[in-house]
Amino acid sequence: MKVIHGGITAATGFKASGLYCGIKVSKKKDLSLIYSEKICDAAGSFTTNKVQASCVVVNKEHLKDHKAQAIIANSGNANCMTGESGFENTRTMASVTARLLKIRKKDVLVASTGVIGKPLPIKKIIEAAPQLVGDLSKKGGEHAAAGILTTDRLNKEMAVEFLVGAKSVRVGAIAKGAGMIHPQMTVHGPKHATMLCFATTDALIAPTALRAALDRSIGKSFNAITIDGDMSTNDMVLVLANGMAGNKKIIEGTKEFRLFVRALETIFLHLAKEMVRDAEGATKFVEVAVKNASSAEDAINTARSVASSNLFKCALFGSDPNWGRIAAAAGYSGAHLDPWKLCIYLGKELVLKNGGRVKQKAAVLNRVFAQKNIKITVDLGLGKYSASAYTCDFSTGYVRINSAYRT
Amino acid sequence: MKVIHGGITAATGFKASGLYCGIKVSKKKDLSLIYSEKICDAAGSFTTNKVQASCVVVNKEHLKDHKAQAIIANSGNANCMTGESGFENTRTMASVTARLLKIRKKDVLVASTGVIGKPLPIKKIIEAAPQLVGDLSKKGGEHAAAGILTTDRLNKEMAVEFLVGAKSVRVGAIAKGAGMIHPQMTVHGPKHATMLCFATTDALIAPTALRAALDRSIGKSFNAITIDGDMSTNDMVLVLANGMAGNKKIIEGTKEFRLFVRALETIFLHLAKEMVRDAEGATKFVEVAVKNASSAEDAINTARSVASSNLFKCALFGSDPNWGRIAAAAGYSGAHLDPWKLCIYLGKELVLKNGGRVKQKAAVLNRVFAQKNIKITVDLGLGKYSASAYTCDFSTGYVRINSAYRT
Repeated sequence: MKVIHGGITAATGFKASGLYCGIKVSKKKDLSLIYSEKICDAAGSFTTNKVQASCVVVNKEHLKDHKAQAIIANSGNANCMTGESGFENTRTMASVTARLLKIRKKDVLVASTGVIGKPLPIKKIIEAAPQLVGDLSKKGGEHAAAGILTTDRLNKEMAVEFLVGAKSVRVGAIAKGAGMIHPQMTVHGPKHATMLCFATTDALIAPTALRAALDRSIGKSFNAITIDGDMSTNDMVLVLANGMAGNKKIIEGTKEFRLFVRALETIFLHLAKEMVRDAEGATKFVEVAVKNASSAEDAINTARSVASSNLFKCALFGSDPNWGRIAAAAGYSGAHLDPWKLCIYLGKELVLKNGGRVKQKAAVLNRVFAQKNIKITVDLGLGKYSASAYTCDFSTGYVRINSAYRT
Repeated sequence: MKVIHGGITAATGFKASGLYCGIKVSKKKDLSLIYSEKICDAAGSFTTNKVQASCVVVNKEHLKDHKAQAIIANSGNANCMTGESGFENTRTMASVTARLLKIRKKDVLVASTGVIGKPLPIKKIIEAAPQLVGDLSKKGGEHAAAGILTTDRLNKEMAVEFLVGAKSVRVGAIAKGAGMIHPQMTVHGPKHATMLCFATTDALIAPTALRAALDRSIGKSFNAITIDGDMSTNDMVLVLANGMAGNKKIIEGTKEFRLFVRALETIFLHLAKEMVRDAEGATKFVEVAVKNASSAEDAINTARSVASSNLFKCALFGSDPNWGRIAAAAGYSGAHLDPWKLCIYLGKELVLKNGGRVKQKAAVLNRVFAQKNIKITVDLGLGKYSASAYTCDFSTGYVRINSAYRT
């Protein structure tokens, strides 16, 4: 498997575009389109929030036949809690796109991200749609990547290529993150973020295998990150597979399937980490690695609990190696924990074992917490399960950004 | 029932003291003692964190006979995750106090609050103990209230008086809060904060009734507040009842019992709210009132979810009436929720119904969010259950305090 250029349009048959249609006050790009020449097998994974944006609800309807050919996405407005007219606007986004592309409305998926509760300026989208479609090109991936950003500073995209038999297949994706990030999604039901990720592939893959691959690849990537603990109403990951690589169809339980899952996992983990690195106000990237938990669930719950602790994240911002906050957050995760067996490492430095601190030079620990990339290891000493969660520090910048988000 | 002066020493037979023994860098008071002339029936409620400070573990042992006569508490050091020697130090605090007071070691309860993982400077406590005991007086309540504070700005104390038959009984308490506040305690097992609260009463009350009263009165008070979502390793509420009011013994299921519960509830709710008002970096006090939930559990879970949302609390800090964040946090609480039935009020202003916003003048909403005391009402429209949670805004000041807590 090798990393290639091209992002969302790296796979054969996919085009994209992105432009500014008038939603964002910043006048940055706010409308994106992804399109496949051929109809695709499609799979989606959505937020488990009980308040769901109309695009989440409508996409679930449109995906009942597991087919799609285009994704239209706007940023700057979440079109959530916008009543009946919000649903009409989502359907209009799909129907206008379908008419211009000469495809079926239900083969268009829709995504929105931004402020909740504000009517979507649908006219601006309708007026911009012809140009959006006209701009579709192999080189439009980066514009599409820009059009879905909100408080993100950087585009997030990646693509890989690998062999299935003698045929090269490609998988590419774009994503956005930055705030209201605590994703918990499944393909079957949802779990927390607004994070969006759209992936495309020219692999020929059985529809059930595509859904299984998506399901497997979000757990250790998007569902393992948290920025602020707030689960969004709009989170979604969409994958379109158009089969144009001409490979022998990938089915579950094969070496090729595992390779495809690894490709999705690699891309999703990279994009998930990029979201954390580009998080609102973040100055540090942190991996919380949990080892030797009693169960897989305990491992991820402990990792997420520590990664979600406001106090730990404030300590990170201040470069204060206050590991007591890590112990406290591990203790309230709900996972099995024996304080006498618990070990905590800051970087490679062991700071807690046998229920008490291991004396280390303050300067050494301070140096670990002053780094931009920090790994915390929490060894529960109880079982054989591991998991990692990824997060950032909690900064005065985050508070400033989110105390005036709408202004 | 009337509010009286005197705090922790308002009840007959209780004395208290507080002094600086050398733990705090700030040189503020850091050691407190509460003592009853007569041995007391006693009850305690502790953190449900699986990492528990040695004082929590030792107090559970000392409370097995439901008796106690004194409480010694230090601030500035949590004596948690301090290994075997941490346990020895807790036991030494109890034994030194017992020897000086000429009471049994197991009738002394111990509390610590402050930094986790740092050895307790026990010698300073031992050296200060004789003066601490010598200073015990009816007027020492305010010194004891000061001795348990960490980042709190103000003493927290309250006392009430009411009649049981013809006899006046008194209940008084002191508390501390400020950070790592998300209490979830029970008398039976524990639930989240470091919050400490010590209460004294001269009421004569059956030991089972005392424990039942404590259990009932923490749910809607301490367990209903959150400052930062981090459950402490040291949270505890202790109640001592010495029976010196000479009233007819209070037993469960009587009018007098309900009156006693109401007294505890009144004091605990007042002190819990005071903790939130005095929270680290807080500029606003917020009540999140949930109405018409499907169950009592759904009501409190929804209220706590909204009250814990970092995004909502940043919006409060910025006086930005971004109610979409309230809807999102209600949606991920796990409680039953129908977005089409959900109504949200900012103060008295209805902003959401029928799945979409109710247009209000921006100036009106901005005014609500600019207040120092804000009430948010989340009407789930599903059942008949209500609950309130209390919180504060999330400020740049909070982040600053907690990014350099140990320095």
